[in-house]
Amino acid sequence: MKLRSSLGSIMIASSLVSASILGTAPEVKANSQHQDQVTVYGDKESPKNIIFMVGDGMGPSYQTAYRYFADNPDTEEMEETAFDDYFVGSQRTYSADKEENVTDSAAAGTAISSGHKTYNGAIGVDENQKKVETVLERAKSIGKSTGLVTTAELTDATPAAYAAHVTDRDKKNEIAQQFYDERIEDAHKVDVLLGGGAKYFGKENGNLDKQFEKDGYDVVTNKEGLTESDSDQVLGLFADENMPLQIDAPDDNPSLADMQKSALDRLSKDEDGFFLMVEGASIDKQGHTHDVTGVMSEMKGFEKAFEDAMAYAESNPDTLVVATADHSTGGLSVGKDGEYAWDAEPIRNMKHSPQWMTEQIASGESIDDTIQAGYGFDVDKKEMKKIKQEADQLAKLNKKKDEEKYEKQYQALQDAIQHPINDASKTGWTSSGHTGVDTNTYAYGPGSEAFRGNMNNVENAERIFKFYENK
Amino acid sequence: MKLRSSLGSIMIASSLVSASILGTAPEVKANSQHQDQVTVYGDKESPKNIIFMVGDGMGPSYQTAYRYFADNPDTEEMEETAFDDYFVGSQRTYSADKEENVTDSAAAGTAISSGHKTYNGAIGVDENQKKVETVLERAKSIGKSTGLVTTAELTDATPAAYAAHVTDRDKKNEIAQQFYDERIEDAHKVDVLLGGGAKYFGKENGNLDKQFEKDGYDVVTNKEGLTESDSDQVLGLFADENMPLQIDAPDDNPSLADMQKSALDRLSKDEDGFFLMVEGASIDKQGHTHDVTGVMSEMKGFEKAFEDAMAYAESNPDTLVVATADHSTGGLSVGKDGEYAWDAEPIRNMKHSPQWMTEQIASGESIDDTIQAGYGFDVDKKEMKKIKQEADQLAKLNKKKDEEKYEKQYQALQDAIQHPINDASKTGWTSSGHTGVDTNTYAYGPGSEAFRGNMNNVENAERIFKFYENK
Repeated sequence: MKLRSSLGSIMIASSLVSASILGTAPEVKANSQHQDQVTVYGDKESPKNIIFMVGDGMGPSYQTAYRYFADNPDTEEMEETAFDDYFVGSQRTYSADKEENVTDSAAAGTAISSGHKTYNGAIGVDENQKKVETVLERAKSIGKSTGLVTTAELTDATPAAYAAHVTDRDKKNEIAQQFYDERIEDAHKVDVLLGGGAKYFGKENGNLDKQFEKDGYDVVTNKEGLTESDSDQVLGLFADENMPLQIDAPDDNPSLADMQKSALDRLSKDEDGFFLMVEGASIDKQGHTHDVTGVMSEMKGFEKAFEDAMAYAESNPDTLVVATADHSTGGLSVGKDGEYAWDAEPIRNMKHSPQWMTEQIASGESIDDTIQAGYGFDVDKKEMKKIKQEADQLAKLNKKKDEEKYEKQYQALQDAIQHPINDASKTGWTSSGHTGVDTNTYAYGPGSEAFRGNMNNVENAERIFKFYENK
Repeated sequence: MKLRSSLGSIMIASSLVSASILGTAPEVKANSQHQDQVTVYGDKESPKNIIFMVGDGMGPSYQTAYRYFADNPDTEEMEETAFDDYFVGSQRTYSADKEENVTDSAAAGTAISSGHKTYNGAIGVDENQKKVETVLERAKSIGKSTGLVTTAELTDATPAAYAAHVTDRDKKNEIAQQFYDERIEDAHKVDVLLGGGAKYFGKENGNLDKQFEKDGYDVVTNKEGLTESDSDQVLGLFADENMPLQIDAPDDNPSLADMQKSALDRLSKDEDGFFLMVEGASIDKQGHTHDVTGVMSEMKGFEKAFEDAMAYAESNPDTLVVATADHSTGGLSVGKDGEYAWDAEPIRNMKHSPQWMTEQIASGESIDDTIQAGYGFDVDKKEMKKIKQEADQLAKLNKKKDEEKYEKQYQALQDAIQHPINDASKTGWTSSGHTGVDTNTYAYGPGSEAFRGNMNNVENAERIFKFYENK
């Protein structure tokens, strides 16, 4: 979706107007990809609004696989995704952990939010476990509105890294508590919080949701509630833990794009601007479990949010949009086992994710019915036999008695369920964890030039702090 | 090695001088990574010289793994490689093959050299098997000198794609014949040819080397011969097939950097400038066989050549350097099996590649002595036992009787030999073939801005043809 080139001439006209407001003449340069003139803002600009998007686990191979997936199979050309036009650079993601030199989302989130590399598991604290300021906190301190939007639990590493400070990412109750307790000049730190993790805001954790409500926040739990709410401050809790994948979600579940739009509608009202972090969190979660159907589902949802963020930035030219990934996950490869191909068609036809199918079967639903409901192609007898064997094994185990054994068998069941799709698509995997490859940076708007080239992930925060100094 | 920043101020002064010669004022822009002023040439420049470097198979994970490998373990920071400062964009590499949507080096080479996507295996011909002009041929036709430098056979896909046109990459005798036969305005197409593949230029193929010699080329076969030759035109044949890996090579074998330097010394004499393609070919070859030691050896050799090319461009500011990869290989992942780490130390200590060790053992050398000579750490008893078993199996087979079976067992032996190093380093692999992930683009010099952002690999050639039109 080439917003840039279609609005190119309008941008040139409006940029001349905004130039006088912003104080710099935007450079009009030839865009080598489109032979158009595209306005590029100079790197000394201080953006009023920042939409910082994180595709968790979205390594380079994820972006390329998604392009294959989103491709129109009827044309010879492989169409560009919404991201491609905005590719500007790449990021070095390694953490400062003494044992592990491949980062987790906590250390990466902290590096990106605060500019400090730290140990894996650290949330908003440095290597010495000392609290470090985040760009979201700085934004609030200079009078901006702030928001955190994620498909994961709001207390998960990436959003937590922007607004909490704990020595261990698993301290989720404490993270939620800090979201409520910590103030900046007597104001709540985060105005808009939308995502999952309701269990950390309910009766098991001091009824924080009620406390937010008492302080003027609308507390909503589904799409309708979100739409009806017109409060500047809102706490949206749409799932007890992680939100469902887009491919599996019921209609009353807001998408990432829905949540982002709702956040932007509210945050835009602030004349001083805003800082908003938007996370496509389950790209990574499905990468961990080798669920390529789930990965594509979440990439599609993240792309939609990205398109909308770009459209917002085109209409609100004092907005910087940056999209990147904190690390890659699983060793996903586009092609495997000597095959010079990656086939998206089997994935496109899927009706549910292997994650959903595994949940159904593990909770006792009919295996045949579940596979029928989820798969977009016939699964052969041999594979069905294997799935039934693994399901039988799981049924014998008691999660409470031996959680580790249960989880291992649960993954074995999911592996059996998704083996046909990984094979048919020719998707390779090497790890149940993260990998160290540099990730892609996409950017547009005032300050976007600062994100060009290969950078260290701490520079995301360093640049934003620098923008905020210029205010 | 930050050449850019150290020569920054000199560049500014000299650029003002060259500006009047070149006809455009170079833009002096803030370099966001170094807070220096670095001269960037505008994208309308037509470079007099082009050094186009291909790291065959060098996907993003190869670049990151190499950074881990080249890192100084005594400093907390992970140092940048010579490439990092010059990262400008990425490339979409898919081919126009009806069966395979992941490219091979022939289709990719043809796309990069001619601007036409084609079927896998095609050398300088399009989807209809029609001959297409390459940028090297165009350079020759407008009076420039030309060169092909590679660590593979000169008749291998990547160099072949610049100077030959055959329907099938395996037609190597025909490719070599075309190198000799085809003229442009009565001149030989390629002035400097340095690499392997002597068997395609000798008595089994019409003694082409003698024919080149008769036409005034120096024909050299080792480093000393290359150094002693001062002819403008040279055919260097340093191995019968592929050249040895840097880690295994004897002293009389020229490195990629040696060959590049020799090429530049000769080509620089042409007042009209030159087009030179330089290929680090065995990054890919070792990726195919999962030899991470060999991969790092060849990445190191390619980085040295890249550093030298950048130094040349700094001293000769009408030179464009572009370095990219035609595709990625093997599904190499930085981390595997749930480990959040990649350990370069075991690889740094290796004395020979698994490729070398396998060759030695397959030809009857002592297993214990060979492992001792090659490995940098102790290989445990269980692994040694497995190596011996595979070696025994191989010894029973006759390559001439059943080549396919022999090759399969040969790889099984190599897998056993390198299993300890893949495990110790935590390197993951998914394929014996290529993968489709976008590859990195590095660039510097006049015209480098045209290589920014995400591009289709055909645009490499399109841009160069455009530069040549402006002449």
